[in-house]
Amino acid sequence: MTRKEIIDNIHRKQSFLCVGLDTDLKKIPQHLLQEEDAVFRFNKAIIDATLPYAVAYKPNLAFYESAGIEGLVQLKKTMDYLHSLEDKAFTIADAKRGDIGNTSQQYAKAFLDPNGDFNFDSMTIAPYMGEDSVTPFTVYEGKWVILLALTSNKGAYDFQFIRSEGEEKRLFEKVLERSQAWGTPDNMMYVVGATKADMLTDVRAIVPDSFLLVPGVGAQGGSLAEVCRYGMTKDCGLLVNSSRGVIYASNGEDFAERAAEEARKLQQQMAEELKKIM
Amino acid sequence: MTRKEIIDNIHRKQSFLCVGLDTDLKKIPQHLLQEEDAVFRFNKAIIDATLPYAVAYKPNLAFYESAGIEGLVQLKKTMDYLHSLEDKAFTIADAKRGDIGNTSQQYAKAFLDPNGDFNFDSMTIAPYMGEDSVTPFTVYEGKWVILLALTSNKGAYDFQFIRSEGEEKRLFEKVLERSQAWGTPDNMMYVVGATKADMLTDVRAIVPDSFLLVPGVGAQGGSLAEVCRYGMTKDCGLLVNSSRGVIYASNGEDFAERAAEEARKLQQQMAEELKKIM
Repeated sequence: MTRKEIIDNIHRKQSFLCVGLDTDLKKIPQHLLQEEDAVFRFNKAIIDATLPYAVAYKPNLAFYESAGIEGLVQLKKTMDYLHSLEDKAFTIADAKRGDIGNTSQQYAKAFLDPNGDFNFDSMTIAPYMGEDSVTPFTVYEGKWVILLALTSNKGAYDFQFIRSEGEEKRLFEKVLERSQAWGTPDNMMYVVGATKADMLTDVRAIVPDSFLLVPGVGAQGGSLAEVCRYGMTKDCGLLVNSSRGVIYASNGEDFAERAAEEARKLQQQMAEELKKIM
Repeated sequence: MTRKEIIDNIHRKQSFLCVGLDTDLKKIPQHLLQEEDAVFRFNKAIIDATLPYAVAYKPNLAFYESAGIEGLVQLKKTMDYLHSLEDKAFTIADAKRGDIGNTSQQYAKAFLDPNGDFNFDSMTIAPYMGEDSVTPFTVYEGKWVILLALTSNKGAYDFQFIRSEGEEKRLFEKVLERSQAWGTPDNMMYVVGATKADMLTDVRAIVPDSFLLVPGVGAQGGSLAEVCRYGMTKDCGLLVNSSRGVIYASNGEDFAERAAEEARKLQQQMAEELKKIM
């Protein structure tokens, strides 16, 4: 999916919501477990209910891998369903991969290859191993790397804020800076946690035009208004993710309607924010 | 597998060789492709041929994921086979995972859970997201985290050598230092690339007793003698990996015998090195 298509979808739906499909058998409505393909059926119901309000879906690979091979089967069914829809959403493999060049090529093939089992539009990548661990993901036409810069968790403070000698740059800023040479705002986005919204000014000083994938609104405590204040650009430039807040709004028979309600609430806040750049 | 069991195996086999199962359909002998389960049959032949000379096997997840769900089926067959053998080798999921706490829990379940599809002894983890991304992997009894410290690739120079202000520590040293609080030499190892053998003195100054998983001997250009000179401890403290140099020694009918030969050559060099600590 091109940058223009993402922006067009944001304008059309008046939303920059990404729904995180962190689908956990222990948390989904238990009546779904009585039949086969519970994970896929949950995801399909969530997608059907939230698609009017969301421009992106982000399956978190860990939740599928934890169920072994069967989990990946459920992921493939979910992706096949998303690809079958006329209303195309941007798809993100939240995989946090990254390895030496010849191995990253294989990860790129696994998740981005149009002929593979999944054919995601993008995937999240950890930057620790540097350039040759990242660039293999940029070779697929119309596909995106989403590089971790500043994550939403407590552990982010362990290394991401380390200041480098002399230059006074923090590690996440070095990642933003150096990776400018590895991709463009047309094929590279960055993860910046909503729980660090006050850092978005520093982020935007380095990547003024790049899209940011922002997790951490909702269950993790981040504020949508703060994220928009410091992170929004004239092209919106944001995909704000909510996982648990939307998909586990209810674990009863009404789970899909309640997910739609929560997605719609976020979409309406987003529509208000988007008025500021129109 | 406990630290004592790993060390006992090293003494028994006079080897600290880890064979990397980076199994690529394009590189394995083409006669294997005529029947089903080519990847598993290749791996089985390699394991049978090299097990007398190796104490560990490291499937590189990317090479299985790149074949989609079928690739994971081949990985499961490989792991089932390794578990069925009387001569137990240490198994490493080379996965380079790491995410926020609730997600890392799912990755740990995926690869380390004894009731899961794979039941690895250990997995490689990227440190960028800090403590809560790492500690969920240490909760399984007898299982190991192998944390990336200093990788063997060119991109290692992008961030891992950044010196922090004031303290004069490089990022990989901060990772080694800070992670001491997250695990012990009984459940945490570190990846240190053989191509950076001269750095092993600095690594050992921080983690004198921890096992190191050392990739990069062979195809990537690292030297076994250098690694031992700077990295070996009284307990050996090393698992030295070779992937391509062993498994792709030949792509003809004799691939398994040639792999055995290459593994045996490495084992003999290792036996010489082990004499120095006996």
